[in-house]
Amino acid sequence: MCPKYECATELLGKKWTGLIIRVLLGGPKRFKEIKEQIPEMSDKMLTDRMKELEHCEIIKRNVYPEMPVRIEYELTQKGQGLEPVIQSIQDWGEHWC
Amino acid sequence: MCPKYECATELLGKKWTGLIIRVLLGGPKRFKEIKEQIPEMSDKMLTDRMKELEHCEIIKRNVYPEMPVRIEYELTQKGQGLEPVIQSIQDWGEHWC
Repeated sequence: MCPKYECATELLGKKWTGLIIRVLLGGPKRFKEIKEQIPEMSDKMLTDRMKELEHCEIIKRNVYPEMPVRIEYELTQKGQGLEPVIQSIQDWGEHWC
Repeated sequence: MCPKYECATELLGKKWTGLIIRVLLGGPKRFKEIKEQIPEMSDKMLTDRMKELEHCEIIKRNVYPEMPVRIEYELTQKGQGLEPVIQSIQDWGEHWC
């Protein structure tokens, strides 16, 4: 169990990560749209978390060559697979925290 | 979602916590029995984690006044409620990590 469990919890244990994933479970979003749903989080923090999530292949960054250029973030399949995890944590927290 | 989700993930994100809970899902155990199932973890680390888990009311410590005294640790109801969380993290890790 160890290394795989740690891989997941190290990521999910970081502040804001679960919330960002939850916002993206609603479909692809632009940076600004994610920010609007989590106003307490700084731009710097969101940028850092998005880079980590992209590095871990939880989200992908799509660049549309329009004028001005449009950039959207969406969950990969790996990222979408976190839905039951986030839901069960949320359920537990609501009941017990 | 934030504070409750964080309460849960801060705890679960710590090294060994999930594994200790998983061992205790199998029933009450003595310190030595937990240690035997997670031999890579130091005594000091297990002691620290057990104190945290007791403080968060995830586990309780039962003292039986025998000779020599017997001490067992078991999950509280709150702790048992983490089973679906740990299972879903485990499933995700096995599939994606």
